[in-house]
Amino acid sequence: MLLHSVGMKVVYLQNHKLALRFDQALPAIGHDEVLLKVKLAGICGTDLALINGYANFNGVPGHEFVAEVVEIGAGIDGGLTGRRVVAEINQWCGECDQCAQKHYTHCLSRRVIGIRDHQGCFAEQIIVKASTLHVIPDSLDDRQAIFIEPLAAAFRIVEQLHAHDYHDVMLIGAGRLGQLIARVMVLQKKTLTVVVRHSQQCKLLQGLPLNCIDESAVEARTVDVTIDATGQQSGLTLALHALRSQGICVMKSSYPSPFVVDLTRLVIDEIKLLGSRCGPFSIAIKALEDGSIETESLIDATFVIDDYQAAFALADQKGSMKVLIKPC
Amino acid sequence: MLLHSVGMKVVYLQNHKLALRFDQALPAIGHDEVLLKVKLAGICGTDLALINGYANFNGVPGHEFVAEVVEIGAGIDGGLTGRRVVAEINQWCGECDQCAQKHYTHCLSRRVIGIRDHQGCFAEQIIVKASTLHVIPDSLDDRQAIFIEPLAAAFRIVEQLHAHDYHDVMLIGAGRLGQLIARVMVLQKKTLTVVVRHSQQCKLLQGLPLNCIDESAVEARTVDVTIDATGQQSGLTLALHALRSQGICVMKSSYPSPFVVDLTRLVIDEIKLLGSRCGPFSIAIKALEDGSIETESLIDATFVIDDYQAAFALADQKGSMKVLIKPC
Repeated sequence: MLLHSVGMKVVYLQNHKLALRFDQALPAIGHDEVLLKVKLAGICGTDLALINGYANFNGVPGHEFVAEVVEIGAGIDGGLTGRRVVAEINQWCGECDQCAQKHYTHCLSRRVIGIRDHQGCFAEQIIVKASTLHVIPDSLDDRQAIFIEPLAAAFRIVEQLHAHDYHDVMLIGAGRLGQLIARVMVLQKKTLTVVVRHSQQCKLLQGLPLNCIDESAVEARTVDVTIDATGQQSGLTLALHALRSQGICVMKSSYPSPFVVDLTRLVIDEIKLLGSRCGPFSIAIKALEDGSIETESLIDATFVIDDYQAAFALADQKGSMKVLIKPC
Repeated sequence: MLLHSVGMKVVYLQNHKLALRFDQALPAIGHDEVLLKVKLAGICGTDLALINGYANFNGVPGHEFVAEVVEIGAGIDGGLTGRRVVAEINQWCGECDQCAQKHYTHCLSRRVIGIRDHQGCFAEQIIVKASTLHVIPDSLDDRQAIFIEPLAAAFRIVEQLHAHDYHDVMLIGAGRLGQLIARVMVLQKKTLTVVVRHSQQCKLLQGLPLNCIDESAVEARTVDVTIDATGQQSGLTLALHALRSQGICVMKSSYPSPFVVDLTRLVIDEIKLLGSRCGPFSIAIKALEDGSIETESLIDATFVIDDYQAAFALADQKGSMKVLIKPC
């Protein structure tokens, strides 16, 4: 009898509280779906935000994971069974206007793993669409592959900017996402300054061709591109402050709530404010494979799923980077 | 004896009130400056905003004008004397980092005619930098040339957008600036929808290949580019509402005060919010010259400077388009 027919162990979020459940049942898989056994899952800032009410999500959170294909739908190539995979966080329909233009991450009826209408990966098993899978090359171990999703989000910034449009970049925030963005941006061979909050954040960037500074050292109108990876109003304010006229401010994190913005500065200085979300998995995989992105130093600890409380507590600590959960 | 040495007639703004003054003296012109006699001036939305406190400006407002060169500085080519000209609203230094990159409208120490540290054009005479002048072709009359500055601002949008990035455009607002933007955007051969408030705004757009709709007919996520020319929070909200994911929202007007914006929508839908200000005078002149932009229908009335009160009262009326003042 298959595990998913008798229920499984999951971390479940309800009314801002996480709890371990053992009774979670999965439906039968559809013809275009696969059943995955989750080998390793990562805690992301968004998961912490979900607990605080972001996206009004109740269910199994988690969207960064490495898994093995256990069972495939009727319409799927048998070669997938047993392969080690990652899945795109956006589970697209393949039929809407956005999908028709291959803007899959903007699918109009997408479900989002562990965030919107889709069970997440803090679970023994998960069902996803086969079309959203990427097979992990053998040369990448699970601890590297766990970074594919957030690293893809970091590479999205490069996709959105035109390389010839800027020279100086300032990244605000060097937390779990900021660390990856910093690693991606040094590959672009621009002058990079990273605004850090803790010496540990700076230490993790040692050896990279960038300049770490404190918030108080940020000067007005000095860079072409700023990236706010803080998800806080103060981060965006700093990012706008540091921008030259005609500069681009990339908003890489969601903000917990709407806030007041002085849009007149944006008009007068013709500033571009650019939202950035999910990115190209294939480019992230390649960068991990060819060794241009190092991630091992970002892993704080790995917990078995039963110790989810300790895992989330560590992830929520100041200066914490990547905390992993092993569901099986 | 030159007029500017004995004072002249101006409309003066002080503490949110306009008054006619006859005692305004101009300094001697610098070697790179010219003295102009103002033939015709236009009232812009910004002038009305200045009265309400925008930019904390006290002095002579006004920046849309047609003038004649009366006197030239020692360093200026004599051929300019007697020519009919317009001047760029931004009086740039020519020496800062922005000027070095030919981003003159973003000069770091720019003075702005009638808005910042520079006397405006609701005056018999004005001194400007010769380098900021454009000679008006003989084929354009003063009533057309008065539109060069705001039309340039409208063309700025085209400069900032990449033509291949969009197909559908929605313009919110068909007031004095919106009318010009509509005329510019139809030249780009995109599908254009204009959200109007009054039937008169729609009437002025008759014959152009565009679709006029009421605010209530705006559907969510239907266009690639929106342009907010209302300068109001409600306009920006509508502009964001109508935008597809990965769309571009151009903010063409300053907003009277900062307000709350839901930036999470911008992040999730990867929307670009783009400030837009001053534009290319030469392109505006060419478009007026070749007849591709019609403006005569936008002129409501012309007042002599002594009737400035009636002129501003008319300009401030709902549905009012371009009100002109004749200083000399």
